[in-house]
Amino acid sequence: MSFRLSLRQRWRECESSLCVGLDPDPRRIPEHLGKGPDSLLAFCQAIVAATADQACAFKPQIAYFAAAGAEAVLQELIGWIHREHPGIPVILDAKRGDIGHTAEQYAAEAFGRYEADALTVNPFMGRDSIEPYLAWPGKGVILLCRTSNPGGADFQLLESGGERLFERIARLAATDWNRGGELGLVVGATYPEELRRVRQIAPHLPLLVPGIGAQGGDVAATVAAGLDAEAGGLVINSSRAILYAGHDRDFAAAARAAAVQARDAIRQAVAAVRADRASGGRPEQTVEAPPGGPMEVRPSDRQG
Amino acid sequence: MSFRLSLRQRWRECESSLCVGLDPDPRRIPEHLGKGPDSLLAFCQAIVAATADQACAFKPQIAYFAAAGAEAVLQELIGWIHREHPGIPVILDAKRGDIGHTAEQYAAEAFGRYEADALTVNPFMGRDSIEPYLAWPGKGVILLCRTSNPGGADFQLLESGGERLFERIARLAATDWNRGGELGLVVGATYPEELRRVRQIAPHLPLLVPGIGAQGGDVAATVAAGLDAEAGGLVINSSRAILYAGHDRDFAAAARAAAVQARDAIRQAVAAVRADRASGGRPEQTVEAPPGGPMEVRPSDRQG
Repeated sequence: MSFRLSLRQRWRECESSLCVGLDPDPRRIPEHLGKGPDSLLAFCQAIVAATADQACAFKPQIAYFAAAGAEAVLQELIGWIHREHPGIPVILDAKRGDIGHTAEQYAAEAFGRYEADALTVNPFMGRDSIEPYLAWPGKGVILLCRTSNPGGADFQLLESGGERLFERIARLAATDWNRGGELGLVVGATYPEELRRVRQIAPHLPLLVPGIGAQGGDVAATVAAGLDAEAGGLVINSSRAILYAGHDRDFAAAARAAAVQARDAIRQAVAAVRADRASGGRPEQTVEAPPGGPMEVRPSDRQG
Repeated sequence: MSFRLSLRQRWRECESSLCVGLDPDPRRIPEHLGKGPDSLLAFCQAIVAATADQACAFKPQIAYFAAAGAEAVLQELIGWIHREHPGIPVILDAKRGDIGHTAEQYAAEAFGRYEADALTVNPFMGRDSIEPYLAWPGKGVILLCRTSNPGGADFQLLESGGERLFERIARLAATDWNRGGELGLVVGATYPEELRRVRQIAPHLPLLVPGIGAQGGDVAATVAAGLDAEAGGLVINSSRAILYAGHDRDFAAAARAAAVQARDAIRQAVAAVRADRASGGRPEQTVEAPPGGPMEVRPSDRQG
């Protein structure tokens, strides 16, 4: 099943938009699990087992495995998730970006070797840097758009030709670039106004939203800004707040409690938006004339 | 020794600006070397041994090793280059880009695990996504600026506030972001006018230039556009044209011949620029007032 369809089915089945990020930091893995690659596997498997019924997706971050020389563990982990928890999509967070033959190799790494259902990709190198990933039918390709960090503003907010860079990426991902229909976007929870803008531009794309929890993003604001017309479309990631909720032998139970709490907070926020819409409140993502959209006269033009 | 100094010393010692890219594509490795990770190591070692005296640097592309599950080979290869050919910097081409703890893990992967002297990094996520790499003293961080592929124009040429995105990246890399002095830039040989512009903005940074050979960039135009005031500053990469110059048992000799040819072509182009400058020709990289530079009144300000 394609990434888009399996994500949609998973949203329905588990009524959760929570994605559990698997960032196993060796310095924070409970001591009783030992050291080395095996401890990463044991830690991640325990987290997955404890949170699977709460999660619409899992998102392993490859850097943690690569720094530890634990690629074999990542491979084993994803295979194990597919076997033990079929139907839960695995998003490999690797933010790859290159061209031609090299991008083909990265796609083979993510989709062939690791059997990921989707991959995060950095769009900086443009359209031809995306195509080698799109050549894998049914695999999701989630482009960085507006990232959750302060430095994201350095380039992503630059305005050119009437639209900001992140808006341009959202527009291309929602239109020209989306052959196969498997594109998604990364939009940080830390900037709900920009998340709202992305949802306007890309009404049907799944949005992977990091930045709640440790990074300070607000769940209610995120949900209100990012839900699509069917009150879906969000993959809200939490990593550290779940992984390191406990620090000892209770870590899996503590992770589960944190995941339940996060899922419930998201559910409540979704219910609030649904209620608001049902009572005639203006749906957040209605296609309204976007302020400063590409077809409008820009403030700077008016000044001339 | 820092990346910047070791590169400078290497330029002097071998009078070469040629960087040999190590992109071992399993489909193109000569048959007699066999299959699997060991064949990648044998192939790369033979290429390095045959071209080391022609090269100012080696640039392994991590995707080829990752797709083949051959991280151990990459580790062994870089360690072997350091032992057998000390003084030749190794640039790990991985185009990493992420923030915070994750970027720290990528830096540990490149500089700790693989012992690379420099790493290519994608700057899309902004300043705080670069800092974890800069925390490794003496390690080079080479930011994507104007890439060699057609799609590079999709975002890198967008103009905002009087400068194009790649110009902004070059300016930040040459000034605010360059604490430690170990930044460099990736600028494709396929767009010499933009390479010339980057050299104006960043007169002292090393420029890693892919795109000659298979991608069609012209050596003379590249050298004329990219040389710094001391007729140095360039790391001109060739991968496929050297690696796959031969297809059989002669592959290493053929690679050497291709490397000699590329180095000589670069040398001749450098000599031509030196001669032109000595005869009073205007040095290409003279610090002239950049049009629309950051300290100038921007067009949009004038409109207010």
